[in-house]
Order: sequence, then C-alpha cells, then structure tokens
Amino acid sequence: MEIDNVLVLLAIVFVAGRVGAEGAERLRTPGVIGEIVAGVIIGPAVLQLVPAHNEAFEAIAELGVIFLLFTVGLETDLQELRKVGGIATGVAFGGVILPFALGFGLMWMLDYTTNQAIFMGTAMIATSVGVTARVLRDKGKLATREARIILGAAVVDDVLALFMLAIVAGIATGSLSFGGLAFLVVEAIAFFLILGTFGRTLIRKSFPHMRRLRVTEPVLSIAIAIALVLAASAAKIGLAAIVGAFLAGVIVGETPKEEELHARTMPLYAFFVPFFFVHVGTLVDLKAMSGAVVLTAVVTVLAFIGKFIGSGAAALKLGRRGAAIVGTGMTPRGEVGIIVASLGLGLGVIGQELYGVVVAMSLLTSIIAPPLLAFLYGLPEPLNAGRTSRGGSENAPPDA
Amino acid sequence: MEIDNVLVLLAIVFVAGRVGAEGAERLRTPGVIGEIVAGVIIGPAVLQLVPAHNEAFEAIAELGVIFLLFTVGLETDLQELRKVGGIATGVAFGGVILPFALGFGLMWMLDYTTNQAIFMGTAMIATSVGVTARVLRDKGKLATREARIILGAAVVDDVLALFMLAIVAGIATGSLSFGGLAFLVVEAIAFFLILGTFGRTLIRKSFPHMRRLRVTEPVLSIAIAIALVLAASAAKIGLAAIVGAFLAGVIVGETPKEEELHARTMPLYAFFVPFFFVHVGTLVDLKAMSGAVVLTAVVTVLAFIGKFIGSGAAALKLGRRGAAIVGTGMTPRGEVGIIVASLGLGLGVIGQELYGVVVAMSLLTSIIAPPLLAFLYGLPEPLNAGRTSRGGSENAPPDA
Repeated sequence: MEIDNVLVLLAIVFVAGRVGAEGAERLRTPGVIGEIVAGVIIGPAVLQLVPAHNEAFEAIAELGVIFLLFTVGLETDLQELRKVGGIATGVAFGGVILPFALGFGLMWMLDYTTNQAIFMGTAMIATSVGVTARVLRDKGKLATREARIILGAAVVDDVLALFMLAIVAGIATGSLSFGGLAFLVVEAIAFFLILGTFGRTLIRKSFPHMRRLRVTEPVLSIAIAIALVLAASAAKIGLAAIVGAFLAGVIVGETPKEEELHARTMPLYAFFVPFFFVHVGTLVDLKAMSGAVVLTAVVTVLAFIGKFIGSGAAALKLGRRGAAIVGTGMTPRGEVGIIVASLGLGLGVIGQELYGVVVAMSLLTSIIAPPLLAFLYGLPEPLNAGRTSRGGSENAPPDA
Repeated sequence: MEIDNVLVLLAIVFVAGRVGAEGAERLRTPGVIGEIVAGVIIGPAVLQLVPAHNEAFEAIAELGVIFLLFTVGLETDLQELRKVGGIATGVAFGGVILPFALGFGLMWMLDYTTNQAIFMGTAMIATSVGVTARVLRDKGKLATREARIILGAAVVDDVLALFMLAIVAGIATGSLSFGGLAFLVVEAIAFFLILGTFGRTLIRKSFPHMRRLRVTEPVLSIAIAIALVLAASAAKIGLAAIVGAFLAGVIVGETPKEEELHARTMPLYAFFVPFFFVHVGTLVDLKAMSGAVVLTAVVTVLAFIGKFIGSGAAALKLGRRGAAIVGTGMTPRGEVGIIVASLGLGLGVIGQELYGVVVAMSLLTSIIAPPLLAFLYGLPEPLNAGRTSRGGSENAPPDA
C-alpha cells in the first residue's frame, strides 16, 4: 500500500475511533465499545473503507495496546500489586481451569475431535486485559483492589495461556516436546525475576540522572524506550507484548517523577489507544460469524460463565460484588481470542465454522463486559466485605 | 513481517535515534544529524539491523515528519507568516530557477539526454523543510523572520516542485497533458483557499466548544484529527503531506488554547520525530553512492550553491546574515530528494549511477545545513539590517 493511502487509512481510523468513543460516552456506554463498533462499521464487515490487515495499521494498533498497558502499569502501585499476588494467582488459575473444562467438555460432547476440543478449551482461557483495563481507567477505578487483582491475574493468565498454546501447537504439528515447554516456562520466569530485581533497582537509581540528557523530553524518551524494549522482549520470548509493557509501566512508575511522566504519557495514550480498539472491530468477519448461531451462543455463554465463576470464585474474599467485578473483568477475550482462532485455522486444527464461533465469542464477551463492569461498580459496596481501597485501608483484614 | 518483529524493529529505531541525538548534542552538533547517522548505522548500509522499506516503519516515519511540521505550524503565527509572503514567494522561485538551471546545465554539458537533464534539474529543486524546521525548533529560532520566510517558501516550493515532477513524469511516460497540469494547479490553489477561509473560521469558532466532548484529551484529539485529515488530503491531491500538516498547525494555532495544546503535542513530537530522521538515514545506499565520486561532489556543490544563492538573493532585504540563513535553510534535499531519485529510477529516466548521485547529494546537503545554520545564528546581527524579531519589533521597516 502506498504511503499516501496509508495516511488516508490512519486518518479515517483515528476520526472514526474518536467519533465512536464520543457517541458511546453520550449513550452512557464505555467509549471502548464505540471504538470497536466504529471498527466494525469502517472495516471489511460493513463499509470496507479500511482493511483489517495492513502492516502499518496493525503496528500502530499494537503500539496502542502497549501504551494502554504501559499507562495502566504507571498507575499501578507495585507494593499494592504484590499484596494481591496470592488472590490474583488463584483468580488466574480458576479462570483457566473452568473455561478450559467447559470448552473441552462441550466439544467432546458434540463429537468434535480431541484436538479440536483441546483447541476450544485453549481459546476459552485467553483473556484480553486491554478491554477491562481501558474501562477501569476510564472509570477511575484502577486503584481499587478488584482492578489490581484483575491486572495481576492477567499477567499470570498470560503465562498459563502461553503454556497451553505451546501444547496445542505442539500436538497439532506433532512436535510436542517437554523440553521445549520447560524452556518456555524458564524463560518467562527469568524475564519476571530479572525485571523485578535488577531492572527495578537500575531504573530507580538511574532515573533521577535522566534530566541531564540533552534530547527533548528526556524522561519520557527513556520511559518510551523501556516500554518498547520490554514489550518487544516479552513478545520475543513468546509472552504477550502487553505483559512487558505493563511491567515496564509498573517499574517506571516507581520513580519519584511518576506524576509528571504520567501527564506526558497521556497524549500518546490519546493518539494510539483508539487504533487498537478500532482494529479489534475491523477483525469482525460477519460471514464467518453467521454460520453456527446456536453453537456461538452456547460457546459465548460458557466462555462468560467459565471466567465469571472460575475467576470470581477465587476472589470471593472480596465479597460478592468484588468477586463479580473480578469475574466479569476477566471475561473479555478480545483480540487474544481472535489471534488464537487464527492460529488454530492456520494450523489446520479447526475449520471456518469453529473459527467464526471463536471470533464471535471473543467479540461478544468484549462487548458484554464493559457495561456490566460499569453497572457493578455502580452498586453499593457491602460494608462487611472487602473494601475497595485507595491507600491505607488495604491493611484491613481482607474478608469478613 | 510478523508483528513481534515489527515491535523489535521499532524499539531498535527509537533507542538508536535517541542515542544518536544525545550523542550529537554532546558533540555540539544538531541532534537531527545524530538521528540520521544512527539510521545509517543500523540500516542496510552498515549493521543491517533494520530494513529501509517496512510499511510500519515508513508509516511511523511519515507520522514523524507530519507531527514535526504540525508542531512547527502551531509555533508559527499566521499574521507574521502573511507578512513575509512576498519575500517567501521570491525565495521559493529563486530556489527553484537557479538550482534547476544548474542541474539541467551540468547534465547537458556532460552529454546526458535531455530527459535526464530535466530530471536532474527537478531533483535539484526539491527542498526537505523537515531538516531545517527541526534545527530551527531545537535552537528556539522559529519566531525569527528568517524562519518564517523559510517555512513560507517551503510551502510555495512544494507547489512548484509538484508541478515540475508532474512535467517530468509526463515527459517520461509520454503522457504530458496541459489539462492535467492545469488541474493540479487549480487543486492546489483550491486547497489553500478553502483552508485559509472556511477552514480557519470554522476552527476558530468551533474550538472553544471542544471541551464539552467526553473523550479523553478532547482538544488534542481534534487537533490530531485535523492534522491527519489535512496531511492525507494534501497527499491525495499530489502536494506533500507535510504541507497539509504545517497548515493544520498554523490554523489550529489560531485558537486561544494554543499553548496548552502545544504542551500536549510535544510527547507525540518526542515519540514520532526520531523515526523520521532515522528512516532518512536508513535510505542511505553506500553501494549506489560510491559510484561517481567526482560527479557527486560537483552535483552537491551546485545543489548547495543553487539554493544558497537563488533563495538567498531573494532575501537580501534581511541583510547578508539573514539572507545566508534563508539560503542555507533551503538547501537540504533530505528524503524529498531521495523520493525524487527513486521516482526517476522507477520511471526509467535515470540509471543506478545518477540515482546514487542524487541520493548522496540529498544526504550531504542535509548534513551540511544544520551545523551551518547553527553557526550563522551564532553570528552577531548587524544593526542596520532586518532584525530577528520575537513580537513587536516586526513593525519596524523590513530593510535598512
């Protein structure tokens, strides 16, 4: 595609995304839904103004979710994140085991092949934390305990999903190797350990000196460099790029200049993030989705219930409202589900029908969750359950 | 290219660009040179870490020069720009006629074909205002009269270059049509007229209401949308995208909230602009450049002299120092020269040898100008010549 046309594409996407977000907000719906819908409308499904697959568009969309999670990381306190580590791990495991069991069980009952059943189980465990993170940010709820648990669980979930995907791909290509799987896990653990120890210390000690740099926006430049390098590194070892970006934000957020840095990150957020959600919308393939309506409905319900109950149950300490928020926050499959579906199609594990089902499920869960989250946060908090905290109340005992 | 690898590419480019800029600043050289050199080093010419042609990289580089010229436009006062309109037009014409004559004459004397002579003349008139605009910004000189003349001349120059390129392409493909040329000119004039009248009024009247929008960063979002749409429109009618971006900045800069908007644009500037100059560096093709050393040297000297004298003479009202600044500011051919060279190669007008000569000339003029500009601005201003002004002194008579 010629560069002039790429520019036209990017202009259309940006304008459509902002118009969609504004429209959604005016309808009291989270802006992210408006952006996804804008993507559906301008994308291949309806107007065909923009293609879903264009390298520049995809790269800028990827930078969008990277800056989203980087910003969310900046706004996340590392100490507070550590405090919820136990619950978050439980939430992640609950949200992997139950959805996998439901997806696998359904396919098995319907006489699909074992490979297809394993694949569907794997597609059910993918979580797109982007959608939830965006809603929590827009609603000013990132400092709540539920939000931290969801973010922590998303990191663990990603490691588990990476592991499951490697197994599925290994089975499909007949190259499953336990050495390879072990290597993946070791790589992931090493990534977190290095970041959590050397990386954090290095950044804390070196950031105050950054002001001596002579380039424009020295502190922001270093922050962007760290976000890009960690996102690229995470992607290179098979983790999600956004996990790297989130951890980059958490670590960089430890510097004393965090507030100023945050203000400077917002314009990047405003520019890039709409591209990501509009891009998710352009991935909608109405033809693929219209195939198996009943199966799609059943899979979507199971996908929702699997995460809602599996993850929610592990967060019952927070009370029913808190558990419902955590469970709902884990349900969107978003672009991760779509990527898993494409992978399955590419490997030949599934055909067009199941591909359409997984894509539809991914989008429907992403569209159901945001209004539900907004509704749940609007409910009164029961006094005898875990409080949503903004600071000191975190020291209170976590359950009634 | 897979998205993970694109991310690695972007991380390498950003880090290399910032390191290059920092290194150059420490050597008391404009940062832009450091970024171009970083591009040469990581690009195909030396380390081959990144390719020059990758759709995502090229698109982000294009956004870089768009945000650069948009920012420069924001910092340019429309009234002040109009005041220098006459001189700027003279500077543009002078900088087109002399370089064309020199390029054409040289090729003709060396027995190249007439088509090749016309092409070389055209390649000599391309001006890359990005390099100069960046240096003027970094040095805080955008408010000087010389800077405004250069920026105004760059807009006129682009229209003239568009016209010449259409002629060259028409001759090369045997499809030269005066109707087509006239249509181009009408389109360009209509673009400027519509922007200058309706566009400006619309923006002035509507901007104060933008704060009622509910999306994040409403004012910045509108500004970005205008920049992207005008850049894409300019590109679509055959003008340079950066002319559209510059005019978008000038018009948006008329709003009362210009200062706040400017502060919010800087993070986008810091992120995107390095990609553009690193990309220019990656375009260097050492093999193509090493062919005709003597011819390259002669063409480069003529390219420099052509603009320096042709444009400078038209700005003699500013005194010798001012004229030298304007003349030097018009000399970089940058990516525009390289694009013209690629076009000529593609059309079959020139071969690998002349292609290498034009590419080398484009880069050499871009590397000579920044330190020279910094040097010239360091000279004392003669009291009896046009003053560099920051505000009211503009009312003084323009010449001694």
